[in-house]
Amino acid sequence: MIASEIAAVLKINSNFALSAHINPDGDSLGSMLALYNVLKAMGKNVKVFAGDSLPSNYSYLPGYDSIVNYSEDMDEEFDVFIVVDCGSFDRTGKCSCLSEKSKISINIDHHLTNSLFADYNLVDSNSSAAGELIYQIIKLMGVDIRKEEALCLYTAIFSDTGGFRYSNTTSVTHQIAGDLINTGINFSNIYELIYRNYSLNDVKIMGKALSSIELYSDAKIAYMELLLSDLGDLNLEDVNTSEFIDYARDINTVEVALFVKQVKADEYKLSFRSKNYVDVRKICEKYGGGGHAKAAGCTITGELCDFRDAVIKDLQQALEDGGR
Amino acid sequence: MIASEIAAVLKINSNFALSAHINPDGDSLGSMLALYNVLKAMGKNVKVFAGDSLPSNYSYLPGYDSIVNYSEDMDEEFDVFIVVDCGSFDRTGKCSCLSEKSKISINIDHHLTNSLFADYNLVDSNSSAAGELIYQIIKLMGVDIRKEEALCLYTAIFSDTGGFRYSNTTSVTHQIAGDLINTGINFSNIYELIYRNYSLNDVKIMGKALSSIELYSDAKIAYMELLLSDLGDLNLEDVNTSEFIDYARDINTVEVALFVKQVKADEYKLSFRSKNYVDVRKICEKYGGGGHAKAAGCTITGELCDFRDAVIKDLQQALEDGGR
Repeated sequence: MIASEIAAVLKINSNFALSAHINPDGDSLGSMLALYNVLKAMGKNVKVFAGDSLPSNYSYLPGYDSIVNYSEDMDEEFDVFIVVDCGSFDRTGKCSCLSEKSKISINIDHHLTNSLFADYNLVDSNSSAAGELIYQIIKLMGVDIRKEEALCLYTAIFSDTGGFRYSNTTSVTHQIAGDLINTGINFSNIYELIYRNYSLNDVKIMGKALSSIELYSDAKIAYMELLLSDLGDLNLEDVNTSEFIDYARDINTVEVALFVKQVKADEYKLSFRSKNYVDVRKICEKYGGGGHAKAAGCTITGELCDFRDAVIKDLQQALEDGGR
Repeated sequence: MIASEIAAVLKINSNFALSAHINPDGDSLGSMLALYNVLKAMGKNVKVFAGDSLPSNYSYLPGYDSIVNYSEDMDEEFDVFIVVDCGSFDRTGKCSCLSEKSKISINIDHHLTNSLFADYNLVDSNSSAAGELIYQIIKLMGVDIRKEEALCLYTAIFSDTGGFRYSNTTSVTHQIAGDLINTGINFSNIYELIYRNYSLNDVKIMGKALSSIELYSDAKIAYMELLLSDLGDLNLEDVNTSEFIDYARDINTVEVALFVKQVKADEYKLSFRSKNYVDVRKICEKYGGGGHAKAAGCTITGELCDFRDAVIKDLQQALEDGGR
């Protein structure tokens, strides 16, 4: 079994380099740092590298401050290079050259598409998170999971399952989560730490977006917009607006929601969400975009007044077609 | 063991009345309906009663449509009356007289304060939800948990643990959740079903509230308001505003947030939240209100301009005292 082989490789060797994907998320950071903490506790020499900057909302993770932004001119060599939560070496960004500076490479991932690029490949798309696989490896090493590792792994699993809500959550996910919280970690504030860390600007922009909602077609279409001219002192850059549209979609009468965000004088990003039967991908493809049936997007260059009515008409047509 | 005794009572008897507390929530409805479904499947005669109206967001629960609003002039008698998620008979409202119309009473609850009012009392404050106890009883009856019961019990546990986030969540909670999702229920949309069911009015009022936030005292105080004069066509009645203040509190610089909601021409409801060290209960007590150190409230009669500055001054003083 590959997981047992990897556990053995970790126990035997002494010098480790760890990395995860660029634009890191809770699973990649939590999984990587769980490994970092457990290997350190076993007396190993461990370096943990990132290919780009780190999101500060995960700074509560034990070991976060030890993560080094990798630079190609670093010449240290390692016994083992472990890549977590990546479909290919390239996903580690600058860190990919560590594969040439290490004797053994290990790939631990849960994505469906993985090029099995390493010497040892533990890839299981049934796992909700890479964190589940790291948990399994630590157990196979016969090492106790301390609070340090538990907090990292809980974070990994929590963030990749949307707090146990996404359909990738399994009974194994819950069993592991239960085992992790038995270490006594404070898990009840993790949601706030990761997701609820706003600036005044963030909250006011969300207020503006929600206030702009209008309903059309027997309240089945929700239209929401953020225009540069409405912003006043507020600044749209760096604001994560991705969940605003959920409020429009989740109005009880609404089947399909559209969010128009002006990003430049003549450039608009459009996001679409549908609830049941409207295929919004089709509409986005018409404008050069794409996505999924219930969540899609596109970018339109031009004037809002030139395309707004046409897009709403597309939605009305899709409602009629879908409602048949 | 009391749970086994109750399981035996359920297996032996034939006619059941079930009830939970007035102003029902996900745990009381889910627990009650899980019992309803399992007893029906065992061929029993089961009636399920409510003491007041039901929240429509739980209408997806199997058996929801069978819940009858109890009327005191109903004269049917039962073998067993089961009360779920209640600290006393009174908590069932009108249904409390069912105890006199039944031979045996059973009390299944997880609250710390419970008057052990029934013939059989299964009260366990270590359980995150009454749903955990119902799960245990069904297991002890040796009956399979079908999707119907699983959806009810998952809802019960999900809602009383805030989606496995509150500190009442244990490894047992997760183990049960894992077992329930193994039945194949669709659990990934339950959060949306329960909590994300807005009206346009709800969302626009939230937008107004968020847009009103101002920061004071080095951005440590967030002030948010909803005034009747600002509402235009919007209607504040029936809008659940309880979570608006979390957005103010969760601004990264903020230690304490105040939300002033005008409910009548001369009446204001004030909600306070603090993050770390300010005791907001103390401030609310000064105005005849109360609560907890980090979440409290009060009602003030008068003009906003007459008390607004004084309350903000109280918050500034509390910041200074707490920061020492």
